[in-house]
Amino acid sequence: MSFRLEFSVRDYELDLQGIVNNSVYQNYLEHARHEFLRAKGLDFAALSNEGIDLVVVRAELDYKKPLRSGDRFHIDTAFRVIDRVRFAFDQSIVRNDDTLCMKAVIIATAMNARGRPSIPDGLIETLSAGE
Amino acid sequence: MSFRLEFSVRDYELDLQGIVNNSVYQNYLEHARHEFLRAKGLDFAALSNEGIDLVVVRAELDYKKPLRSGDRFHIDTAFRVIDRVRFAFDQSIVRNDDTLCMKAVIIATAMNARGRPSIPDGLIETLSAGE
Amino acid sequence: MSFRLEFSVRDYELDLQGIVNNSVYQNYLEHARHEFLRAKGLDFAALSNEGIDLVVVRAELDYKKPLRSGDRFHIDTAFRVIDRVRFAFDQSIVRNDDTLCMKAVIIATAMNARGRPSIPDGLIETLSAGE
Amino acid sequence: MSFRLEFSVRDYELDLQGIVNNSVYQNYLEHARHEFLRAKGLDFAALSNEGIDLVVVRAELDYKKPLRSGDRFHIDTAFRVIDRVRFAFDQSIVRNDDTLCMKAVIIATAMNARGRPSIPDGLIETLSAGE
Repeated sequence: MSFRLEFSVRDYELDLQGIVNNSVYQNYLEHARHEFLRAKGLDFAALSNEGIDLVVVRAELDYKKPLRSGDRFHIDTAFRVIDRVRFAFDQSIVRNDDTLCMKAVIIATAMNARGRPSIPDGLIETLSAGE
Repeated sequence: MSFRLEFSVRDYELDLQGIVNNSVYQNYLEHARHEFLRAKGLDFAALSNEGIDLVVVRAELDYKKPLRSGDRFHIDTAFRVIDRVRFAFDQSIVRNDDTLCMKAVIIATAMNARGRPSIPDGLIETLSAGE
Repeated sequence: MSFRLEFSVRDYELDLQGIVNNSVYQNYLEHARHEFLRAKGLDFAALSNEGIDLVVVRAELDYKKPLRSGDRFHIDTAFRVIDRVRFAFDQSIVRNDDTLCMKAVIIATAMNARGRPSIPDGLIETLSAGE
Repeated sequence: MSFRLEFSVRDYELDLQGIVNNSVYQNYLEHARHEFLRAKGLDFAALSNEGIDLVVVRAELDYKKPLRSGDRFHIDTAFRVIDRVRFAFDQSIVRNDDTLCMKAVIIATAMNARGRPSIPDGLIETLSAGE
């Protein structure tokens, strides 16, 4: 079961080619992940203040079709565990005419206040709930 | 042989964790690629005006160590051909104390004015010159 | 009569102070203006393709209260004519608890394909309709 | 006496009009101010960690000429005191062919850890040194 968030392209996200700049997709994906966390009762900023920093360790982004001015789209986000210190978000960006625009795999970990990978107790269970 | 470009972190690129936001690395990498093109006598914006759009089709980004306020770093960019319609840039982001911060593989193609992958004659030769 | 658009803060818009970076407010304001145009039947990107570039010539931004992670807010946008070649958007950013976060005056003009200020016939009437 | 910093336009800063997006000028201006601070021995990020947040309260931005792909430019930044809790940076963005692209006045204050305007002892003297 995945989490869906609706978006629309904002013109400042376009570059001189008239398409959404390639870096902006990561903004979209991050926002979708943070809203996924929020839907699970977790707050990225509050976690960071408590010394738990969720960080991306690898991103694989397949750009299928560009987004343009006025496009409306949604992002589906699914969560899975990789190993003891890493988890992944499988995300897809789909334009409202059902065109797949991006497939992404984002691998992340949690860093404790000393900068070491360390996933707090309960985090995985909370993120996996309802999957 | 790779192309090197020097950078320093700008504070507006940091997020609430006090590290460079994960999307900003793609800004850095894109700027390094465009300066690589420029060093070869090619201009991204001029190409786009002529109807030749260089576009990213896949990005693989390994985040090794975060960049922080005040960090100075360089990006090394190397070019290679993958097949008839795709080429790759192998890029690394290295902080000035020699810490590897990111390894990236950016796979790209050229789109013609009709939106079809089509690499103009001579482009590969120009980009490969001196390698 | 003004045009209202709803927003929520996205975490990538925050800087190391944990507040929305001062440049991001202009992204918000621009998006609200472009949606205001769209509500009037005008499309910023299509106008640009036709050689009519709407450009900002002056921005006055009063930062009253910062926006933070999770904040929801709206922007009210009102249009008025200044003179033969300039018009203004009076915009305010209001957090959902009714706190005024920003007052802005954005003065703009239209440039024709030769880069001269020139407001196309009917543009002012369209933008003023319903005011 | 003002502080000068050199820049060049990066293509991801351009929007669909092929000019630097209006919000990006505030990124440039902020970076120039932070480097001005650094030249005075002050570090924006370190100050923030100590509970001293320098914040913009008003920005007046006059857009004179747009910056485009490949443009090189510099920003001159001068500091002046307004009153007991406010100071200003007068900044100009000048393209390398001596074209004035922007005049800006940025009014700022310092907030203490309780979010009240409060300028730490010595800050004004440090910023004014050499003026």
